[in-house]
Amino acid sequence: MLRTHTCGELNLENLNTDVTLCGWVQRSRDLGGMTFIDLRDRYGLTQLVFNMEDNPELCSRARELGREFVIKARGTVVERSNKNPKMPTGDIEIKASELEVLNVSKVPPFIIEDETDGGEDLRAKYRYLDLRRGIVRKNLEIRHKLAAETRRYLDRQDFIEVETPVLIKSTPEGARDFVVPSRMNPGEFYALPQSPQTFKQLLMVSGMDRYFQIVKCFRDEDLRADRQPEFTQIDCEMSFVTRDDILQTFEGLINHLFREIKGRDIGHLPHISYADAMRKYGNDKPDTRFGMTFTELKSTLGETDLTGGKGFKVFDDAGLVAGICVEGAAGYTRKQLDELTEWVKRPQIGATGLVYARYNNDGTVKSSVDKFYDENDLQKWVQAFGAREGDLMLVLAGEPAKTRKALSELRLEMGNRLGLRPKDTFQALWVVDFPLLEWDEETARWHAMHHPFTSPVPGDIHLLESDPGRVRANAYDMVINGNEVGGGSIRIHDKTLQQKMFNVLGFSPEDAQSQFGFLMDAFEFGAPPHGGIAFGFDRLCAIFSGLDSIRDVIAFPKNNSGRDVMIDSPSRISKEQLDELQINVK
Amino acid sequence: MLRTHTCGELNLENLNTDVTLCGWVQRSRDLGGMTFIDLRDRYGLTQLVFNMEDNPELCSRARELGREFVIKARGTVVERSNKNPKMPTGDIEIKASELEVLNVSKVPPFIIEDETDGGEDLRAKYRYLDLRRGIVRKNLEIRHKLAAETRRYLDRQDFIEVETPVLIKSTPEGARDFVVPSRMNPGEFYALPQSPQTFKQLLMVSGMDRYFQIVKCFRDEDLRADRQPEFTQIDCEMSFVTRDDILQTFEGLINHLFREIKGRDIGHLPHISYADAMRKYGNDKPDTRFGMTFTELKSTLGETDLTGGKGFKVFDDAGLVAGICVEGAAGYTRKQLDELTEWVKRPQIGATGLVYARYNNDGTVKSSVDKFYDENDLQKWVQAFGAREGDLMLVLAGEPAKTRKALSELRLEMGNRLGLRPKDTFQALWVVDFPLLEWDEETARWHAMHHPFTSPVPGDIHLLESDPGRVRANAYDMVINGNEVGGGSIRIHDKTLQQKMFNVLGFSPEDAQSQFGFLMDAFEFGAPPHGGIAFGFDRLCAIFSGLDSIRDVIAFPKNNSGRDVMIDSPSRISKEQLDELQINVK
Repeated sequence: MLRTHTCGELNLENLNTDVTLCGWVQRSRDLGGMTFIDLRDRYGLTQLVFNMEDNPELCSRARELGREFVIKARGTVVERSNKNPKMPTGDIEIKASELEVLNVSKVPPFIIEDETDGGEDLRAKYRYLDLRRGIVRKNLEIRHKLAAETRRYLDRQDFIEVETPVLIKSTPEGARDFVVPSRMNPGEFYALPQSPQTFKQLLMVSGMDRYFQIVKCFRDEDLRADRQPEFTQIDCEMSFVTRDDILQTFEGLINHLFREIKGRDIGHLPHISYADAMRKYGNDKPDTRFGMTFTELKSTLGETDLTGGKGFKVFDDAGLVAGICVEGAAGYTRKQLDELTEWVKRPQIGATGLVYARYNNDGTVKSSVDKFYDENDLQKWVQAFGAREGDLMLVLAGEPAKTRKALSELRLEMGNRLGLRPKDTFQALWVVDFPLLEWDEETARWHAMHHPFTSPVPGDIHLLESDPGRVRANAYDMVINGNEVGGGSIRIHDKTLQQKMFNVLGFSPEDAQSQFGFLMDAFEFGAPPHGGIAFGFDRLCAIFSGLDSIRDVIAFPKNNSGRDVMIDSPSRISKEQLDELQINVK
Repeated sequence: MLRTHTCGELNLENLNTDVTLCGWVQRSRDLGGMTFIDLRDRYGLTQLVFNMEDNPELCSRARELGREFVIKARGTVVERSNKNPKMPTGDIEIKASELEVLNVSKVPPFIIEDETDGGEDLRAKYRYLDLRRGIVRKNLEIRHKLAAETRRYLDRQDFIEVETPVLIKSTPEGARDFVVPSRMNPGEFYALPQSPQTFKQLLMVSGMDRYFQIVKCFRDEDLRADRQPEFTQIDCEMSFVTRDDILQTFEGLINHLFREIKGRDIGHLPHISYADAMRKYGNDKPDTRFGMTFTELKSTLGETDLTGGKGFKVFDDAGLVAGICVEGAAGYTRKQLDELTEWVKRPQIGATGLVYARYNNDGTVKSSVDKFYDENDLQKWVQAFGAREGDLMLVLAGEPAKTRKALSELRLEMGNRLGLRPKDTFQALWVVDFPLLEWDEETARWHAMHHPFTSPVPGDIHLLESDPGRVRANAYDMVINGNEVGGGSIRIHDKTLQQKMFNVLGFSPEDAQSQFGFLMDAFEFGAPPHGGIAFGFDRLCAIFSGLDSIRDVIAFPKNNSGRDVMIDSPSRISKEQLDELQINVK
């Protein structure tokens, strides 16, 4: 190695050692007859000191070094007079005796420190410089550790990692495929996998018993914020298991990751049914770092109604009246409440208005609907909400699904405003018992909420043909801090049930065969009961790094138009290439 | 879990335990009033026994089970009367008390045992059944272990695994790219990476210091035997290193892998120069499991000539006369030697003829060219070859490069015939000092033998412009048993040298910028000295599995036309898909 040590490891134990370090010039300061240079590498920063009196030639050369020059410096480890307790190497410095410039650098387009002056676009173009910033590099290190610990855990549990193909076959189901024209088979195309779903099921048919893979997947979707055309999954499948075996195995995985990487014990993951999650949080990926669960003043089935018969038409006409109780917020000003009302009325939230009721410290209730509800009525609300003096009740009303969605947004917003969603707190849970099917008004048929191979909950199978909408899927999502980080299901392995399922979905036997033929065929040769899960690895990395965007945990991400602005891709290709592939661009 | 144990773990220690196993019916035998079933899962085989006398209903149901039915069986572990020492579970059997059929199976299209009656095409179509065979599954298990141990070793050495993008940019250099039309950027294409070469160099510029990735790569080449359009690399790069640091690090890796997976110590890897490898083995990836190195009777530079002036025109006209000494083969019959002569004359070997000389046990030499060379001449050959009585000397002559190639093939063939190339012996070495450039007659210019970023050996830099053909590359290949398993180089990190290199390669500064612009730009911001290596992971797996073809170590391989015959891909895509991508098929 060109160096004897890295820039992150020297301390008082190394005093008087002759060392050679390599790295980048982070910062340079001249102070009297001395020049101090902070030398940076992946492992840390070490201060080099050059002395004009001792060695004017060397010190002069040091003074000529620019930011980001790559140097090799030799010297002796000495104790620092003004120690820097914030730096792991802050007790020492290197009294330099030799200096070699390994490479020069132009002035970088932005400052390469945690706090930078570079805008997002500039940093994207010079991503290789952005990655030099410790704060960015750290994310890739956490990602590496997450992958390594995932593999370690699954390996111990007898999972084997099997690479499935990237050049596969386009299928009409699911999102849009990226396709790859085949030169050897003109007019034909491969597709890039949206997930290795069928291959992992085939691996179960092949007796692989426990499979996993950390694998790139691809979806050609219009990129909403925080989607990437290529993303990474932790993809897993197991044979001879029930749902609870899978939940237990992957509760173990997530516990292992939090323990090894964050030093946290997140404990047992509670289960919540889809129905409860929607009722209590209005959301199938509830953020359970805080409470503020929904209270229904008027429930959809009418068992509860604390609002009717008082002449308030908005509530009387509503399918659902529900609200949240914001702790200690009774002091919100009229201005703040007006602003909140405007907030819930924004199109992306979609509420028609906001009703509030302050439960004052003196025990009285003051609401925006005092015209319709008297103190007695409102005290019933207080009881329903379980409110305490000083709390603020915020109530929405309308069509149940829309109301829940809006109230969920309001809950999250209030959580943010009250600081109840800290990035270093982690609450994980399982959401279970999803509906198997959803009715599509447009095509007037049932659609599989996950995919047609998802098994119903065993006790609901008898409803499949008589009352499809009530059948629950044997499916589950893992949710952390309001993010769906993983999801999966027990699969159908029985041919008769699979046939029934296709029937319910409106497939003719011919269509089923033409679309899912090779998997259906495989199922005829002894498919074991099996199920699995896939985790969104980028999202998991973002959560562990305390980041909102997955873009920050990807070394070379693409922008919202699917472009890599650093390498300027995609790009035109030559006529020869198109001719060889026998395709034309329109 | 549906089972209490796997089919590979029960033994005498589990006697009288009540167990439940799940798996596939491998074999079924009725013997007197008993029915024996071998139940198979990934972990092994366990014998179930059903007794017609004890439980006629159960036993009758067991008799109806077909091959590859998936069952769940409960019973008690009992000692076997006729133990099977070949099976890890062969001391016990399960006296069955319950039986549940989890899934039925059609009769499989071939026998699912190590010895099968299924031909290659049939097994490819039903790959998921082929993978049930222990002998095939074992290869994927070794592959998993190789990946896991590679990661473990590199992780310990501070390498971090960084995922580089799969959707990148097409470049005119190298092999043919697979391309992916971009829907969001009509008329433009991504390319799939042939290797992450530029990205790993950018990661070094970004200060990542030590990078690796086990990563899929893609080449749209005409598929010769044992090439796959998608293949896997162990891709690595390090900063602040010299060649020997890299060789040492990856000698460590390969030693680690052999130790952990094969329980073998393959020791220190010898270095051989490209020039020596060509002279001694006629091959830049010599199989060093056996000697039989070349002896030059007439060398290319004329220092040695034991053949001239005797009137044998074939040798007199030859640029090189060289041979191998085959130990103990003097007894080869005339018929065998004629057959060998025909063998070397086949077009794929390309020799014009074969001269042999037997060094008989009585000390005399008898050759096919006795007309030209007397006993005295031939004794000089014997000395040159270091032959011992009973050896056979085989000599080829002609244009040096062609002669070396043919003699290399002959050497490997004789190695095979003499059983000197056992699959469970491993000889690894480094080939170093490759030529940096090769002259291309067609375009009349120098080409980079690796790629234009490969650094010359430091001592040869001064020859770059004056005598480019003599410049050695600071490049290296790791060779095991005659297979190139990995290769890499120290890269150029100095802009002036890079410019010189492009100049020698005949690039205009504009062309250099347009083709390698973003990497060149990155090099201006403080690129550290760096170098790396990439291993062909499929080949490595094949060597560890004792297999000749990489296809056998890939879960779902493609055939020679790039087709996956199991899923029938590539395939036509819909007009809607083509329209969205704004492309036409010609």
